[in-house]
Amino acid sequence: MKTIKSFQDIISHLQSVEEKKTVAVVWAEDDVTRSAVLKGLEAGIITVTFVGCRKEIEADERFAQYKSQFTIIDATDRDDAAAKAVTEVREDRANVLMKGLLNTDNLLRAVLNKETGILPKGNVLTHVTVAEIPELQRLLLFTDAAVLPCPTVEQRIEQVKYVTKIAHALHMEEPKISLIHCSEKVDERHFPCTADYMQIKEKAAQGEFGKCVVDGPLDLKCSLCYESMHHKGIESPINGEADALLFPEIESGNVFYKTITLLCKAQTAGLLQGAKVPVVLPSRGDTIESKFYSLAVASTI
Amino acid sequence: MKTIKSFQDIISHLQSVEEKKTVAVVWAEDDVTRSAVLKGLEAGIITVTFVGCRKEIEADERFAQYKSQFTIIDATDRDDAAAKAVTEVREDRANVLMKGLLNTDNLLRAVLNKETGILPKGNVLTHVTVAEIPELQRLLLFTDAAVLPCPTVEQRIEQVKYVTKIAHALHMEEPKISLIHCSEKVDERHFPCTADYMQIKEKAAQGEFGKCVVDGPLDLKCSLCYESMHHKGIESPINGEADALLFPEIESGNVFYKTITLLCKAQTAGLLQGAKVPVVLPSRGDTIESKFYSLAVASTI
Repeated sequence: MKTIKSFQDIISHLQSVEEKKTVAVVWAEDDVTRSAVLKGLEAGIITVTFVGCRKEIEADERFAQYKSQFTIIDATDRDDAAAKAVTEVREDRANVLMKGLLNTDNLLRAVLNKETGILPKGNVLTHVTVAEIPELQRLLLFTDAAVLPCPTVEQRIEQVKYVTKIAHALHMEEPKISLIHCSEKVDERHFPCTADYMQIKEKAAQGEFGKCVVDGPLDLKCSLCYESMHHKGIESPINGEADALLFPEIESGNVFYKTITLLCKAQTAGLLQGAKVPVVLPSRGDTIESKFYSLAVASTI
Repeated sequence: MKTIKSFQDIISHLQSVEEKKTVAVVWAEDDVTRSAVLKGLEAGIITVTFVGCRKEIEADERFAQYKSQFTIIDATDRDDAAAKAVTEVREDRANVLMKGLLNTDNLLRAVLNKETGILPKGNVLTHVTVAEIPELQRLLLFTDAAVLPCPTVEQRIEQVKYVTKIAHALHMEEPKISLIHCSEKVDERHFPCTADYMQIKEKAAQGEFGKCVVDGPLDLKCSLCYESMHHKGIESPINGEADALLFPEIESGNVFYKTITLLCKAQTAGLLQGAKVPVVLPSRGDTIESKFYSLAVASTI
């Protein structure tokens, strides 16, 4: 199977798959959300269930030619739309959840609802980004730039499971996952994450994450650049070719995310993992492309 | 006075200054250290006191024509060289300290020595980077990518003092200093740094740091991009034009440093601040240019 190296590869792959995933889109009142969904319909990679905002969707002429590819469920308000979209997922009629013009909190309340929600007991909600960085010429996964402030070791283990799962879905046969830290030394006293990384590596060696290579602590340069690793005298099976980065906490993940989008012309797709299905939670500043790519990545999992 | 926008501007400025700073270079056994120092002599921006390695320096023919610009002090070994270089600083014969081919620990031991060292009592040792990022077209300062794991509020206050001092030395009249966090919300419980930031802003308002603008918590994008700030609905006097970034801890500072050098073609200069004079502590992977720029920045302060 061909390795996926770009968002275009993901889209081509989804086009070649017979059965399309169904995305439940909550409250698509804004043009940016509808434009991203439209790109998905145009590309022929998804089917869509809009929940709420029937008026806006029916008034948007661009959707007229895709009538066979979407349905609309009525909702009285944003909370009602969130609850109904979650029901679509719970009852297996939708495979991806996408936020439109409502607050993240409103959508998460429906996702997390103990009786009617879609978070399996004990699961960890965490954010995964897939980035296409011109300088790297391949896709790079990382977690967590947006949700978990400072993961416990149990949460880090779940994060590794999620990124491995997504990497496998992107046809990375044996993804290289680098556990990021500012240096390569294990120093439990000053940097508890480095002790957590030892536990994660043990679990990886026991096969807990399936086929993958996990190593760390490694700094960002050694993770992504063979010459830097070699120059520093470091030996690691990551070999400067990490497919995924696990950041120690949200500050460094967030800085990486914002640096590559602002200063490296990176394109990104973001997902919330841990619920029954991937949740696309774009932020206000995300471009139409970024929301479209998020839909595409969510539909490969 | 002309604002300095690039490393070349720093060098031109130093060339125009009559009195040159003297750099004490500890154990210049390696070619990369000597090449960086040579660039400083060629540019005519420094005078040099080499401490140790007389044989290597006298054998290096490139230095022959600069004999009037450097002296050599003999040393029996690396520790002796470190101690003698520190003495040059303590007795006001050198204005900058630079590490050659020895371990950082060996040099710092001499710097930190309670009787013969050069760390004023109560001072905080912290790392400041000056970066030239093609996408930004100006110099950007940030701290701390390398030394303090997670600063206390007192240490953060010192960090702001140091970056303001360097910014002023680079002719930034009223530098804009952004206190970085993954969001703009103050959340003392999950993110103690955001409470520290409130204290720092208060001190800035009281004039404690001299002429500067300090704001935060702000994320990296809002700090460096007006459109991102505007789009997010944030109001800040930083206005997307930060001259300096204060990172909440070493992990995010380190990730920023390594991302811009690896993926954004940034040039950087690094300094240890807090001792009696700036200390240039290059890491093994640093280029000759980076070490030369570090010398130049250290010589402006």
